[in-house]
This record gives sequence, C-alpha cells and structure tokens, in this order.
Amino acid sequence: MIDRYAKPEMAKLWTVEARFQALLIVEKAVAKAQSKLKIIPQKAWADISKKAKFQVPKILEIEKTTKHDVIAFVTNVAENIGPNGRYLHYGMTSSDVLDTATSLQISVAKMTLDKSINELDIVFRKLIKKHAKTLCAGRTHGMHAEPTTFGFKLAGYHQEFLRNQKRVNEAFKEAAVCKISGAVGTYSFQDQRVEMMVAKELHLGVEPIATQVIARDRHASLLHSFAMMAAGFDRLAIEFRHLQRTEVGEVVEGFTPGQKGSSAMPHKKNPISAENISGLHRMLKAYASVSYDNISLWHERDISHSSNERIIISDSFILLHYLCTRLKTLLAGLYVNKERMLENINLSQGNLFSSHVLLALIEAGLSREDAYQKIQSLSHGLKPGQNLKDAIIKDKEMSSMLTKKQIQEIFSGKKHLESIDQHLKKISKI
Amino acid sequence: MIDRYAKPEMAKLWTVEARFQALLIVEKAVAKAQSKLKIIPQKAWADISKKAKFQVPKILEIEKTTKHDVIAFVTNVAENIGPNGRYLHYGMTSSDVLDTATSLQISVAKMTLDKSINELDIVFRKLIKKHAKTLCAGRTHGMHAEPTTFGFKLAGYHQEFLRNQKRVNEAFKEAAVCKISGAVGTYSFQDQRVEMMVAKELHLGVEPIATQVIARDRHASLLHSFAMMAAGFDRLAIEFRHLQRTEVGEVVEGFTPGQKGSSAMPHKKNPISAENISGLHRMLKAYASVSYDNISLWHERDISHSSNERIIISDSFILLHYLCTRLKTLLAGLYVNKERMLENINLSQGNLFSSHVLLALIEAGLSREDAYQKIQSLSHGLKPGQNLKDAIIKDKEMSSMLTKKQIQEIFSGKKHLESIDQHLKKISKI
Amino acid sequence: MIDRYAKPEMAKLWTVEARFQALLIVEKAVAKAQSKLKIIPQKAWADISKKAKFQVPKILEIEKTTKHDVIAFVTNVAENIGPNGRYLHYGMTSSDVLDTATSLQISVAKMTLDKSINELDIVFRKLIKKHAKTLCAGRTHGMHAEPTTFGFKLAGYHQEFLRNQKRVNEAFKEAAVCKISGAVGTYSFQDQRVEMMVAKELHLGVEPIATQVIARDRHASLLHSFAMMAAGFDRLAIEFRHLQRTEVGEVVEGFTPGQKGSSAMPHKKNPISAENISGLHRMLKAYASVSYDNISLWHERDISHSSNERIIISDSFILLHYLCTRLKTLLAGLYVNKERMLENINLSQGNLFSSHVLLALIEAGLSREDAYQKIQSLSHGLKPGQNLKDAIIKDKEMSSMLTKKQIQEIFSGKKHLESIDQHLKKISKI
Amino acid sequence: MIDRYAKPEMAKLWTVEARFQALLIVEKAVAKAQSKLKIIPQKAWADISKKAKFQVPKILEIEKTTKHDVIAFVTNVAENIGPNGRYLHYGMTSSDVLDTATSLQISVAKMTLDKSINELDIVFRKLIKKHAKTLCAGRTHGMHAEPTTFGFKLAGYHQEFLRNQKRVNEAFKEAAVCKISGAVGTYSFQDQRVEMMVAKELHLGVEPIATQVIARDRHASLLHSFAMMAAGFDRLAIEFRHLQRTEVGEVVEGFTPGQKGSSAMPHKKNPISAENISGLHRMLKAYASVSYDNISLWHERDISHSSNERIIISDSFILLHYLCTRLKTLLAGLYVNKERMLENINLSQGNLFSSHVLLALIEAGLSREDAYQKIQSLSHGLKPGQNLKDAIIKDKEMSSMLTKKQIQEIFSGKKHLESIDQHLKKISKI
Repeated sequence: MIDRYAKPEMAKLWTVEARFQALLIVEKAVAKAQSKLKIIPQKAWADISKKAKFQVPKILEIEKTTKHDVIAFVTNVAENIGPNGRYLHYGMTSSDVLDTATSLQISVAKMTLDKSINELDIVFRKLIKKHAKTLCAGRTHGMHAEPTTFGFKLAGYHQEFLRNQKRVNEAFKEAAVCKISGAVGTYSFQDQRVEMMVAKELHLGVEPIATQVIARDRHASLLHSFAMMAAGFDRLAIEFRHLQRTEVGEVVEGFTPGQKGSSAMPHKKNPISAENISGLHRMLKAYASVSYDNISLWHERDISHSSNERIIISDSFILLHYLCTRLKTLLAGLYVNKERMLENINLSQGNLFSSHVLLALIEAGLSREDAYQKIQSLSHGLKPGQNLKDAIIKDKEMSSMLTKKQIQEIFSGKKHLESIDQHLKKISKI
Repeated sequence: MIDRYAKPEMAKLWTVEARFQALLIVEKAVAKAQSKLKIIPQKAWADISKKAKFQVPKILEIEKTTKHDVIAFVTNVAENIGPNGRYLHYGMTSSDVLDTATSLQISVAKMTLDKSINELDIVFRKLIKKHAKTLCAGRTHGMHAEPTTFGFKLAGYHQEFLRNQKRVNEAFKEAAVCKISGAVGTYSFQDQRVEMMVAKELHLGVEPIATQVIARDRHASLLHSFAMMAAGFDRLAIEFRHLQRTEVGEVVEGFTPGQKGSSAMPHKKNPISAENISGLHRMLKAYASVSYDNISLWHERDISHSSNERIIISDSFILLHYLCTRLKTLLAGLYVNKERMLENINLSQGNLFSSHVLLALIEAGLSREDAYQKIQSLSHGLKPGQNLKDAIIKDKEMSSMLTKKQIQEIFSGKKHLESIDQHLKKISKI
Repeated sequence: MIDRYAKPEMAKLWTVEARFQALLIVEKAVAKAQSKLKIIPQKAWADISKKAKFQVPKILEIEKTTKHDVIAFVTNVAENIGPNGRYLHYGMTSSDVLDTATSLQISVAKMTLDKSINELDIVFRKLIKKHAKTLCAGRTHGMHAEPTTFGFKLAGYHQEFLRNQKRVNEAFKEAAVCKISGAVGTYSFQDQRVEMMVAKELHLGVEPIATQVIARDRHASLLHSFAMMAAGFDRLAIEFRHLQRTEVGEVVEGFTPGQKGSSAMPHKKNPISAENISGLHRMLKAYASVSYDNISLWHERDISHSSNERIIISDSFILLHYLCTRLKTLLAGLYVNKERMLENINLSQGNLFSSHVLLALIEAGLSREDAYQKIQSLSHGLKPGQNLKDAIIKDKEMSSMLTKKQIQEIFSGKKHLESIDQHLKKISKI
Repeated sequence: MIDRYAKPEMAKLWTVEARFQALLIVEKAVAKAQSKLKIIPQKAWADISKKAKFQVPKILEIEKTTKHDVIAFVTNVAENIGPNGRYLHYGMTSSDVLDTATSLQISVAKMTLDKSINELDIVFRKLIKKHAKTLCAGRTHGMHAEPTTFGFKLAGYHQEFLRNQKRVNEAFKEAAVCKISGAVGTYSFQDQRVEMMVAKELHLGVEPIATQVIARDRHASLLHSFAMMAAGFDRLAIEFRHLQRTEVGEVVEGFTPGQKGSSAMPHKKNPISAENISGLHRMLKAYASVSYDNISLWHERDISHSSNERIIISDSFILLHYLCTRLKTLLAGLYVNKERMLENINLSQGNLFSSHVLLALIEAGLSREDAYQKIQSLSHGLKPGQNLKDAIIKDKEMSSMLTKKQIQEIFSGKKHLESIDQHLKKISKI
C-alpha cells in the first residue's frame, strides 16, 4: 500500500485530522467574511474564531447516525462553539467546504512538493556543471552515434524537468480554486463577495462558473502534470539503467556523497532506485487516467469522482514527492565512471569522430564526396584493435592535409567539449 | 486511501503479517519437498516443520541492516529454527519465494473474492426472476424504443457478469503459478521435482519457463479480468443511475429488504451506491493499465514492477471485493417502481407498441407498406393525452381486422411478456 | 478508418504531399540561413530557392533502393536543383528536418484547428446569451436539486472550453519548436545561428537542448491538451444526451437554424451527434496515452515513437477538428424546449424553490430551525398534483409573513434569474 | 495513417466493399433461415439467393437521402432482387445485421491473423531449437546474473506468446457471436430459431441476452487479447534492442536468411524492426482502452461506440497482423553472435559461474558458509584480466576438492546446458 512511499512531511498533510483541519479553515474563512459583510453577527464570528475546533472520534461517532461526513463535522464544531455555532456553514452546501478544502490541501501539499522539486533542481544543476565536459558516447537506437558529454545529456533531461515544473505550476494554479457558490453554483444563498474574500484569505483562485462542485478538468490537469513530471523521471531512470548495465558500466547508483569508486573495481550495484522510479511513475500515469474519467460528471454533478479521489489526489502527491526525493538521492549519490565512458567511446575504434574528420577535410579543401569516401575506406579497413586516428595519421594524403595536432585535437573531442560547455552555460545557467 | 474500502475478511489477507505468513508457507513447502527428495536431511525438515515462525518486529529490525526483506525474513525464521535453519531457503533465489507467495496470496484472496461473487450471483438471479415479467420501456439513445421487461434487462447484465466471472477464473488459473527455478529460471541449483511438489502442495500451477520471476503477463491478465468485471458493474450502475433520476423514477436504491415504497410518495434518494461503483471501477481500470506496463521487464527481470505491485495487486482484490458486496447490497435493496415503469411507457402514447400492431395487421393480411402507413397516420394524428390503442379501436378499418381483445392484448404486452419469460427461463436458469 | 472524419481543409494538411512540402520548406529555410551566414555559397541558395521541388512518385521510387525516406527526398530535390543540390541538407541529420517539419505541420494545422475553435466559441456564446434566463432544473446525482438557467449551465461548459483552449495554446507553443542541432543535438556540424534563423523564419520556438530529436514530452503535452478539450466536449455531449431523453425532453439536436419546434409535437430525434462526440473523444484520450508512452525514448533516441506518430499526430488534429465542427453544428441546431423545462421543474411540486422560501422566512424574522420545520411539514404534506406555492399561500402563518407577491416572485425564480444574468454578463462577457 | 501497415491480405477484409459484402451474407443467411421456417415464401428466397447484390456507388447515393447506411444498403439490394426484395431484412433491426456482420468480418480476419500467428510460431520454435545450447549471460537489473542459453530465453518469450495465442482464441470465441433478436433483443418480431440457424450457417456463437446490440465487453475482451499479444512482442523487441546495442552486440536484426555475419565485422545495424514493434504495440494498448470505454453503453444501447469502432476494430487486426509478420521476419533474419555472447560472459571474470562452484564445493563436503567465503575471497581478489576459473585451479585447497576436469566442466557450462536442453525439449516440444 501507499504508506511505504509516504515521507512524513507529506504524509501528515493527508491524514483524516489534516482533512478536517482543512474543512475547519474553510468554514472559519467563510464565517469571517460573512461577519465582515454583516451577514452573520460579529459576535458570532468572535465565538467561531475562538472556539471552533473538532474532535475526530466525536465526528466519526456522529457520522454513524447522520451518514454524512460534513454534517457530522459541522455538528461537532458547532457544539464546541456553543449557541453561535448555528452561524457556522451559513448558506453553504457541503461541496463548498469539501472542494475548497481540497484546494487548500493541494496548496499546502504543493509547498512541500515544491521543496523536493527545488532540492532536486539544485542537485541536478550541480551534476550538469560537474560533467559539462565529461566526454561520452551519444547513442541512437542503442548504437554509438556521436560523442556528447554526460553533462549535456543531463541538461536535456533537466530541461524536460523544468518544462514539467512549469506544467505543474500552471496546472496547480488552475486546480487551487475556491468555490462558495452553493447548491448548483448560482450563489442563491450566498453573497458572491464571500467567495472572493475567502479566496483572498486562503490564497486561492475562484471558480467563475461552478456546478455543485469545482470542475474536474482542473484536477485532471494537475494529476496529468504530475504524470508528465514522473514520465520525465522515468526517461532519466531508463538512461541510468542503461548506463549501469554490466557491459556499459558508465554510472553506478547508490554511492554516498563523498564515497569514492574506482574504475578497476567499480562497485557492482543493481540500479534499484532507477527501477523503482520507473515502476512508480506508472502509478502516476494511472492516477491521471482516473482523473480524466472524472471529468464528465452528470449535470450539476454526480458523486462518482469522490470515491476514487480519496485515493488518487493524496497518493499522487505522496508518490511524486517520493520520486523527487528518491531521484535527488540517486543523483547525489551517482558514481560517474569517466574512464569507462572513454573506453566505451573507443569501442568504435574512433569512428565516433569520423564526421568531425570529414568536416576538417572539407575545411581543408576536399570536396564532401571525396572526403567521405576516403574516411569510409580507412574506416572499413580497420582491424580489431586498430583505431581510425592512427590510420589517419599513417595515411599520407590525409596527414598532408591535417596536422598531427589537428588530428589529436579532433579525437580528443576538445573543441567539441568547449562548444558544448558554452552552450550549456547559456541554456542551463549552470 | 484504500483502507476505507477494505472489508475485514479481505483486508486481513494483505497485511504485512499475512505477507510473511505466505512466505513462510512457501519456504516450508520447499523444505518439505527437499526432505522427501533427500536434498536436505529429514531431521532438518522435522525442525523446520516444528519451529519455523517469524516475528515481524525482528524482521523489520534485521532489514535495517540487510536492506533486503527476504534475507531479513529468512534470518529471523532460521534463528527460530536453530542450527537446521540453514536448510531453510535452500537453493532458492528471493523471487522464488516472493513470487510464489504472491501466487499463494492471490489463491487465498480469490476464495474470499469468490464468496462475494457467488453471493452477488444469487441476489442477481433472484431479482431477474422476480422481474421477469415487469414491463418497462427499452431505450436506445436514451429514447423509448420498444417494451422489454426489467428482468430481461437485468439478465443481460447478468450474462455479462457470468462472462466476467469466467474471465476472472481463467485469468486466475494463469496467475496462480509456482516458480522454484532459481536465479534465471534454469533450475541450476534446484531439482525440478521440488517445484512440482510445491505446486501440488499449494494447489498452484507451474511456470514452465521462467525468468528470475513469474512472467508478468499473468498478473496483467488477472487485473484486466478484474477491470472487466468492474466495467460490467459500471454499466449496470449507470443503468440504475438513469432509472433513478427524477424524471424517470423507475428504481430507488437503498431500501432495506422488506421495506415498502409507494408510488405516491417514493423514497427520494440519491443513487450514491451506484455512483460509488462507477467511481471505483475507474481505479480497477487504472490498476490494470499499470500491470500492462509491468509486462516488458528487461532480460531476466528488472525490479520496476515491484514498487507498484505492492499497491495494485492487493488493492485490486480489495476494491473488486468491495464492489461485489456493495452491488449485492444495492441489488438486495433496490426498490422497483412498477407503476412508474408503466406510466413511462405511456409517455409515448402507446407508440412503443406500434410495431406489434404492424405485425398483427400483416398477419391479418395487410401488406407491410399499407400497414405501416395506416399506423403512422394514426400515430402522427395523436394529440396530447390521446393514445394509439384508443385510436386503433376507434378506427373502422383497423377494428375490422383486429378484435378489441386482440388490440387489448397487444397493448398489454402480455404475449410479449410470456415469450420473454420463456427465454429468460431457458438462458438464465432462474 | 479515419478518413470518414477528416474535413477537407484539415485532411489536405496531412497528405504525403503535404509532408514532403513541409520537409522542403525546412530544407529551404536552412539553406537560406546558411547562405546568409556564408556557410554555403550564395549562388547555391539562389539555385535552391528557384529550383527546389519534388515529385512524390520519384521519391517513392528512390526509397525502394535507399530504404530511407529522407535520403530519397533529398536525392530527388537535389536532382531538380542541379549541381548546387549538394548544398541542400548541409550539415543536417534526418531528424533535424523530420522533426522540424512536424512542428511546421503542427503550426499550420493549428491555424485550421483554431478556426474551428473560434467558430465554436461564437456559437457557444450566442447560445449562452440567448438562454441566460431560461429557467431549468439543476440536477445533482440525476435528481432535481435547485433551479438554474440553461445559459448558466452552458456557461460552465464554456468556461471549461476556454480553459482547454488555453491549454491547447500553451501546449502548442511547447510543441512547435525547431531543431537543427545535428546527430545528437550538440551542433557539431551546424552553426547554432542557423537554428535560430530557421526558427524565426518558420515562426517556431527552439529546442534548447535536444537529443537527436525534439523531446517527446512536448508532443505528449499537445495531444493531452487535445484529449482534455475533447473530454470537455464529452461532458457537454453527455449533458445533451441526458436532456434529450424521452422523459426529460428539454433539448433536441439536429434542428436547422431557423426551423421551429413545438412543445406539443417536439421533433423526436436521437442524440446521434452528441453520442458521436462521446465516442470519438475516446480516441483522443487513447492517442494521448500513446504519446505518453513515447516520452521515454532511449539515450539520444530510439525510433519507437515514429511508427505510431504517423497515426496519432495527424489523426488527433483531424478528430479534434471534426469534433469542433460537429459540436458547433450541434449547438447551432439545438432546439431548446423552454416549456418542457418549466414542466420538469414542476415535477417536484415546487420543492425546488423550498430553500428560497427558507431564506425569505429567515429574513422575515423566523429562526432557521423554525423556518425549516414549517416548510418541511408543508412539503411532506403535499399530495400528487398539489404545489408548495399554493400550500404556502394557503398557510396562515406563512402568508402573514410573506406577501402573495413575494411568494409569486420566489416561485417565478425571477430574482434568481436576474442575479444569474448579472453573473453571466460579468464572467462570460456575453 | 494506418494504410502503411496494412498487408494486402488483411487490408482487403476491411474495405467498404468487404463491409457491404458481410452485410449481404448476413441478410442472405437470415432470409434463407426464414424461408426454411416458412416465415418468408420459398420463392422469395429463391430470388434473394440468386439476385441479391449491391453497388457501392448506388448505396452511397441513396445514403445521401436516407442518411442511414443500412437502409441505403437494403434499398439497393432490394432493387436488384425485384419485388421479392421486400422479404429482405425481414423483421430485423439495423444492429442485427451490422453487429452480426462485424462478427463475421472478425471471423474472417481471424483466419488471416491466425496464418501469421502460425507462421511466427514455426520460426519461433526453429530459433529456440537452434539456440537451445547457445550459452549467454542471464541478466537481472541489466547486470549479469547467471548463465542461461539464448534458446532458453526465447522459450520464455515463446511460452508467453502461446499464452497470448490462447487468450486471443478464447476472446475470439466470445466476440464472434450472432445477434438476430430485434430492436431491444427481445425477439419481438423474429423467431428465435432464425438466430440459431444463422449462427450455425455463419459459424458464429449466439448472444444469449442482447440489448439492441451485441454486448461490448466481448469486443473489449478481443482487443485486450490483441494488446496482450502485442505487449509480449514488445517485451521480446526490448530484449533484442538490448542485445543489439553497441556494447552488447549479441544479436543483429535484418539478416536475410542464409546471409552470414562475422564476429570480426558484424553488420552494424540499428534495431529498427524491434523499435517499430515497440512503437506499434502502444497503438494496440490504446485501441483496447477505447474498447473498454465502449462497454458502458446506456440502457439498450447508445451509439457512442460506433464512431470509434470504425477505427479500432479493423486497425487492431491490421496492426497485430503487421506485428506478427514483422516479428516473424525479424526472427527469421536474426544474426546471433555466439562468440560475442561468450565474450560478454567472460566480462565478469568467471563470476557468473560462482554459484555453480559453490554447489560443487558443498557437494564435495564443505559447509555452505565456508564454501561461500572461500569463493568470495578469490572473487574479490581478481585483478582485471584475471579469471575465477584460473584462480580456483591455482588455489590449493579448492583444487584438492575439485578435479581440474570438474572445474573446466563447471566453467564450460556444459552440464548446465544439457539440463536446459532437456527442459526445453520437455516444455516447448521443439
């Protein structure tokens, strides 16, 4: 069950206690506004402000009779307030408080989530910076394609992460809205100003035209943005799982920061964290799909969304938060085996740099066709253990066109690294 | 979270305690088989048989050091056994015990699930029988189409339920398999006969060619069958939600059996249970989609499935079990408003029976075209409050071809009801 | 197959011809930029600019040999250009042109889509305005809840539509990016300025850190936004399907604008268009789910996305465009049966206004509790055919507190209508 | 669009022509049965039998007026029959012929699909047999785990394929049913024997209790089984994509049968086919998800399924058929690099066999703990280039317990291979 993945700081925001706390905050904000607008007596607000509180066991006891959680809650709180308790929940429908409370919980949980996102961001940037010039093979179809750097690779994942952060922020703004407009959203028993004042007090937006509930496309959009962020994590986790495999061995997860690895005897470890991230991201996709199905409520609402929202909203926050912290730890403890990266590049006998040679030859005056043919002929002639660089140096014609230093430089990837580094500095502000 | 939906008899099968209990049963079954095959000393089996037990707190404590739940479990149990504890888990890989234990838990939970399915089946059949001849409007596109009976409607849903029961049973057989074939499934350290004996002991099938784990298409197939059954429940829940709406009012949910409703003052109740069923069925679809994504594990396995299976397998059982019991209660407490059904039929001024009249006229010798035109002309001429039956009786030509008794019979739907009843008896064995 | 749903103006944007046309535009924009930057001779650009064109049959013929569509395309165009054809596709990798061309096609198709969205918007607003004060029952759980207006209902759907329009626009900006950065995105053979100039020329954004391809979260986000808009259409379609059913009869689809319906003999029509919209929205959800699965490409790319993108991108545009135009026609031809709406409101014998009476009594000085009890007692005492309004007028105590005019006004919903109208004017700017 | 993937033998089954042909076959089967039962004149059947045919252009022309495809079709055919044309479509509702025709098309397409499944099966078995003893590394988490054989690996995938074949067959039986029971499934205008006779004639099952349509769980089940088979293909495709990567190089796709590869200069090829299979399997999952959403039709049916079924049923057949043929070609042309497999095994310096040594030492009398420690100490002491086998041979104590021959045998994997071969013969009947 989900508990295993709930970090304490996130778990505590989704307890039964926390739920009622959110309801209470909404009820109080409404009463406060109504008092200011003289809808309820100021004296009533004074009492509500001071005495409103709840006892979970009592609520549960009352619910047994009323079979309605909001009524049970209001009854319990009203009892604690005394006679002025009748001004609590004034002119409201249950969904006003329930849906606004959910928005409030989302707002609060968002802050905790953001903390984990920001911490992940910092570690991400550090790693990009550190490996901006760490040469490694770029791979397409799992095959070596062209040299790139590990920092450049990471920066691509980081850009996706930033896009997803933006998506989460945008969707959050849409989801965190207040709704105090009554039974079918027509403000029939509620002054519209109450809603605006509550929204301001609770730092929420406003649902401009509601049904009985806040429209569920808002929640679908939020959970979708979570699933997108998780999908980005999955893409990165898959990269690490590939790079960690026995035959590749370019990274190892699970190093405590500071701990040293060695290329001779690298820690052999399974990419458990990365696989875990891949596995849990599937849950977030699934929760998002449920939230899609909740959009088409009937007329002014049916309550089919409620049964599953008790699961998917809290659990999406819990899991995405877990993934952020887990990925942060993974990145912070990632051992990057630079030597192995170079060894792997050499697996292709220098061919990874062939197009760089091509360009140099063209610049040196050869036609593209001629340059291409010459390189291809050298490349195809390589025997196991031989290297394109040496073959070029040995080749009379080529070495007459390119100096040894030029050739060395090409195969060191140095110029390439500089340009990548420049680009990273510009884009990622690392 | 899921706890809210977990009935005690199902919840207890998915606790941490129950999990370790399942592991223990598997380990003991393996040791028993190995003892019979003289792979381990008979004395060892005697000790294991008598003394093997676990203490959850100790396991959790050991896990802190080993960071591996199976090792922690085995260590704890072995300590309890004493020296012969070293013959526990002999020749096994963790997944042998984990995956077989999951199959075992699935088997046990299946029995509890079956109980709820069977109870639902009984209530279903009763309701079909009771309403085999309860005339009501058949609707296509939400529009009245032809008369049918409420029992006939239900029988369609029941047939789907039976198909889904079969699907669940078939998929269960595929999922409940034993795997004691070691690290990559090659039986390198295990006698194949052990696996067969364990399978027999635990009433499980055998995974014929395993990787490190039991193939995940088996679990996907099971959770898919659950989602299918839930989808069938959703279709029925939607039927009830339609029939209960203010303007239709043909059924009301939430009557305690025995309680009487009246057509004059029908209980006004929201279709909360039906909406709840619709809402939770979405979770089962989502869990099934996760299990699909678990199929493509890499090579002999990656562990990406594990993190989400801690959620989706138990929770699918819990939710489907909940849905069965909830739907059973709904069916048992369904108030069927027969008078309203007839009133609704009359909304279409008798036109619902027009094709029956058509047939009678053709049998009486009119050509299809003539019959069609005559009925249409009468039908289009009806004013509000008028009825096709009366119009036909008044019509000279028609009443010369059909006796009043014949006409009465057509519009009573009597013959139609008889034939439906016959069909239901044949198909549903009600 | 999809053809059935492809409107000509959208279909023509996704033909094989259109695809190659997009490739050609990209190749020319690159050459133009390279010429300005003196990477290729100005003379070459002059030739490319004048002579670059393609012949589909020739491309297909060449592809048979090369088994590579981009090479075939480039070869064909280069032949048409003559010797300077070798400066075409200079320093580019296939994905540079393929992915940028897709972005270009998306841009162009977006304009056609926007047209249909805007037309729908206009019809939507008209209908809201027209029915701002058309009183009807608000329904929760399918049961009558409180009065609302048909325009207010529509305005809620319209707000969701506006949110989805914004989502589509945001996602579009993310998806429509240019990528001319070479094999693994490192600009190893391409001046970065080329990419920026091409982006500007084609009105596209830039992929800041690419792999070999444009990141697929961008496309997933776009198709998700399409699915969201379609889900909003489904919610509205379901509303219409409910309102059109025989027992409700409040709307009828399929009227040609200008045509008149009558309450006595309303056009009986099946809600085919609405059901069609519901059915096709499922396709858009499905396509979005595929685009999710395309996100986690391996390393610098694998080509698993390509096979399904040939289906899902074009077909998502085609279907969403179809849905917009179909929904527009539905709205434009919707017959709204105001009389029936009032009749349905009366089904609940005036109880729909009971809370309005409650409020009036409280304002008149009664305590909430007393007011509630009095109304409830009257309401429960109503016999079939009786009405709460008359009962209140007859009731001595009540009629002493409320004037007949007040009572009439409450049950006319007039004040309520005024306030709804005000709100709609403010929110929807209708 | 889908056309690209439609093999001619499958494509032709889903044309407009083929659709009408299926409708015609159903209409004729009904008329034939009705004639036998004397419901229609024998003379009418004689005419229908001889003259019933259709012209697509005429149907489309008539449809413009009637806006109903079935009526247009029946009209056209009836015209061709002459006066007795009025006995065509006798007592039927449109869905009777539409849904039964779909079942018929499914039946016919199933035969073509089966052909491709069977051909794939043959190639699969051949490859398993050929590589039953081809030693390679078994991998968990992408890390070397234990030795296995390539044939054993394949056999696991093949078993999944067989399970999926069974699932497809079971689901097909459920989907291919006949429905001739009229407007709301109550046989009000149709003799039940007609349905049974048509079912027999067309080799279809019977829908025992229908609504207006055949229940959609049947189609969902079929498309789900397709998605499951495709998911199994994806798992295998991913295996090949892993094995083909530069650093692993154990297989290469795209060899024409007979063509030879060499370990020195293996064909470098991208795993395009495997990636293509991965990509298209996502479509089948998506189509299945749409078919799930079609289950909950309202009451006796709404028509929301129809719009998307025009896409998902045909296209699922087309794509699964394509995947079968593509995978068959992939398997037939797979180059398996046995030398590289051995080289990769040696990457782990013999450690892959360490547990086999462990077992041998235990059998030779050492306690498990001692044996484990000794091997671990040797293993950890290995320097790059050294090998566990040599270390054991050099180790005095070990070589006193195991003969050199025994050691050689362990590291050759010979005994292991024999046992795997035996198992494969038993299970796969290869």
